[in-house]
Amino acid sequence: MAKRKIAVIGVGKIAQDQHLPVIDASDDFELAATVSSRGVGHNGLPVFRTAAELYAAMPEVGLVSICTPPGVRHTLVREALDAGKDVMMEKPPTTTISELDDIVAHAARLDRVLFQTWHSQYNAAVDQAQRIIAEQNVKSVRIDWRESVRKWHPGQDWVWEPGGFGVCDPGINAFSIFTKIMPFPVFVESAKLTFPANRQTPVDVETRFKSGQPHQPELSAGFNWLEESGEVWTFTIVTGTGDELKLERGGRTLRVNGEIVLEHGDREYAGIYDRFADLLDARESDVDAAPLRLMSDIFFLGVRENGPDFEW
Amino acid sequence: MAKRKIAVIGVGKIAQDQHLPVIDASDDFELAATVSSRGVGHNGLPVFRTAAELYAAMPEVGLVSICTPPGVRHTLVREALDAGKDVMMEKPPTTTISELDDIVAHAARLDRVLFQTWHSQYNAAVDQAQRIIAEQNVKSVRIDWRESVRKWHPGQDWVWEPGGFGVCDPGINAFSIFTKIMPFPVFVESAKLTFPANRQTPVDVETRFKSGQPHQPELSAGFNWLEESGEVWTFTIVTGTGDELKLERGGRTLRVNGEIVLEHGDREYAGIYDRFADLLDARESDVDAAPLRLMSDIFFLGVRENGPDFEW
Repeated sequence: MAKRKIAVIGVGKIAQDQHLPVIDASDDFELAATVSSRGVGHNGLPVFRTAAELYAAMPEVGLVSICTPPGVRHTLVREALDAGKDVMMEKPPTTTISELDDIVAHAARLDRVLFQTWHSQYNAAVDQAQRIIAEQNVKSVRIDWRESVRKWHPGQDWVWEPGGFGVCDPGINAFSIFTKIMPFPVFVESAKLTFPANRQTPVDVETRFKSGQPHQPELSAGFNWLEESGEVWTFTIVTGTGDELKLERGGRTLRVNGEIVLEHGDREYAGIYDRFADLLDARESDVDAAPLRLMSDIFFLGVRENGPDFEW
Repeated sequence: MAKRKIAVIGVGKIAQDQHLPVIDASDDFELAATVSSRGVGHNGLPVFRTAAELYAAMPEVGLVSICTPPGVRHTLVREALDAGKDVMMEKPPTTTISELDDIVAHAARLDRVLFQTWHSQYNAAVDQAQRIIAEQNVKSVRIDWRESVRKWHPGQDWVWEPGGFGVCDPGINAFSIFTKIMPFPVFVESAKLTFPANRQTPVDVETRFKSGQPHQPELSAGFNWLEESGEVWTFTIVTGTGDELKLERGGRTLRVNGEIVLEHGDREYAGIYDRFADLLDARESDVDAAPLRLMSDIFFLGVRENGPDFEW
């Protein structure tokens, strides 16, 4: 079968680090063009300043992968769906729940495939943790998610602007694993958000969750964006039968009672594109709204505190 | 037909001011009991400290109206649905979007009637404004929603606690009218929330909305909770044909180009109970999530500022 022609919209760090190399190596997809307001191309392929120009010039491109920051994504997804395209979106999907619910409904009305990617869900160690928990249930989950904003978003001021998520931008990766592996729904019970006094998004978030389960599991998460010693992307889970699972390295290592039972490299974005191909074959959408809902709930319900100013 | 037996859960100000008198005067409903942690009864009817005691003692009561503050409502609604009851909820429904989506899905699974009330929607002047806008479209909407927290929530500290909504508690009434009368979906573009420095919910909120409509209507709202001169609950709407609509008094007066075309008293809660009876006849749920979504989006996307301390 011929490869499917796809265009990447928004050619920033995540597109260059992940999407473009994965598409280049893909058996299913073939890059046809990029859309970049700064004119960034790839492999000499056509570059358009706006999506509308792409749709007019290359109607044979039926797929787009949207890699812009989330603030402009609602408009871009609506425009792509209206142009008859099937759409894949980077995480986080949008900056509001109303926007996400709107594009899900719009894709369904137009019978287009809409795929909300959550890259951290595409790890075999995450799948294995999910299976163990499904068998043994959980007594407690502690999520620790700490990294350096200076390393991962160097100079990207938009992460500190309203709608930029702050430390919840990496934190939502944790939530996408959390809502996938838990055998029951979870809800925000309380949260404390610490904002740099000179910024509009949080640098540190501590959250407690409730479940409504009769055995009242203890569930909590801590995010911090000033960790300079390296990444801590860890779930510590005590199962109903007392085993301790450690899901480390953002879901790439699984330990059971201290022993590594599974460890693998990064195939997250390859997994995402495989999944997109499957969804296109089946003509099905896949939008898991739970991680964004939880994150939005933290802002709605959380206590706010101001901390020291942040400067790059 | 015999009246339907209903119990009121949570006997605070809104139950005493509205629900109990309306049920007393209703042709459709008959109060059977109250549930009150403080033991507040009505007309000598049975009083239970918990809903579970009510469900055990009076299984013939098939309906509950939940009038507690929103923080405990998710648990109470789940418990009522699991006990086989049809449920009506005061506004705002819950303190998070995850909780609202969960109970909507749970009611559907159990085939129970779930009715989320938005009392401000039950005004003939709101219906008439909606009809005019459907014919003429809109150029601009300005919402001004100002009242005194000291008058409307005297000493109720929970309104200032996380999940207490602050000025968004009355403001969500405006949103319930807004999302009802608008002929297209609206989204939060930007918001500024001012918090008393010693409190956890906002006292003042200014919001701009976007619509994705090609004619780019101007849409904005301002909420303030320190207005001591009387209530300002007003929509100022310029239609596509240039008429100016003023929806005043929270939706009870409609002016067109300065002339009053409709003015009526308060039948909001009678209208809510009429609607609940209709839903029960049809075995249909009615949960409009749009006002809560918009409010949640404001907290997610908004800029935060601290203002002066608030003391009663």
